[in-house]
Amino acid sequence: MKTIFYIASSVNGCIADKDGNTNWSAEDNASFNSMCEKIGAVVMGRNTFNEYLTLSDDDWPNKSGQTVILTLQKTLPNSKFEVYPATSPSQAINIFEKLKKSELLVIGGNETWTSFMKAGLVDEIFLDIEPVAMGNGKALFQGANFETKLKLVETRQLGPQTIQLHYQVIK
Amino acid sequence: MKTIFYIASSVNGCIADKDGNTNWSAEDNASFNSMCEKIGAVVMGRNTFNEYLTLSDDDWPNKSGQTVILTLQKTLPNSKFEVYPATSPSQAINIFEKLKKSELLVIGGNETWTSFMKAGLVDEIFLDIEPVAMGNGKALFQGANFETKLKLVETRQLGPQTIQLHYQVIK
Repeated sequence: MKTIFYIASSVNGCIADKDGNTNWSAEDNASFNSMCEKIGAVVMGRNTFNEYLTLSDDDWPNKSGQTVILTLQKTLPNSKFEVYPATSPSQAINIFEKLKKSELLVIGGNETWTSFMKAGLVDEIFLDIEPVAMGNGKALFQGANFETKLKLVETRQLGPQTIQLHYQVIK
Repeated sequence: MKTIFYIASSVNGCIADKDGNTNWSAEDNASFNSMCEKIGAVVMGRNTFNEYLTLSDDDWPNKSGQTVILTLQKTLPNSKFEVYPATSPSQAINIFEKLKKSELLVIGGNETWTSFMKAGLVDEIFLDIEPVAMGNGKALFQGANFETKLKLVETRQLGPQTIQLHYQVIK
């Protein structure tokens, strides 16, 4: 199973502003949605899931695939889409293995990405960098005790203001 | 006066590891030293200056130009190089204006960059992104109350693993 992160951040590693908002570019949104639909196996945390529940069905990033919600609760609210609960990164991977998937996309938030990093269960990272510097934003991975080396695979200009960095995790 | 930041960070915006070390690439170091010598007008904070005092003269990044140290102290230890103390970003800019400089390079650390950002005294940012993710590093700008929009000017691959992003600050 190949585990891939999709992250967007400010130039200084903030994944949301001080109020938790992510006003990223249309190009980032398009690339994100396209990768979710292409892979069709998505993992998100309970907080991120709760945010999607406040949006319209059209905004759901993985309409035709399966999505695992990382949560300590055993049941989830009813959803129009195919969602499964999991209590840990390894359980999330098990669910997708049973579904015969070969890769999965972890789309956040911070606790979810950090739990995969700490478990050493990450193979690739896509990072879209948006043109803003935030002193008061939510810092990616901050407060978790790890340091992980990466290998730059590719850089891509998604739009006039957005650059995408693609890394492999060195294991 | 054009004020330029030179910053190197992990993919998630950490400017040093948990112990304060910056084991960045040779390509980042070469680009950094080259820009310091080219501009010849450098600003650093007192902590960064103290670190340079523990190194050999060869490591000093601005041998033939002038350097301003941001510090609340009125005098500095003796130095082989031309250094001036300043208590604020605007005083640092004044010193270089009197020296007939047209641009200056702010090389850190975090408090110094943040004080220029909060004062709105930044025109351009060069950011070298190194291939490492740190949960426990020192996060750039973290804890300061600002959000500043940027414009991507150029991206450049400094080496196989290091990408340089060049931004203008939108005022």
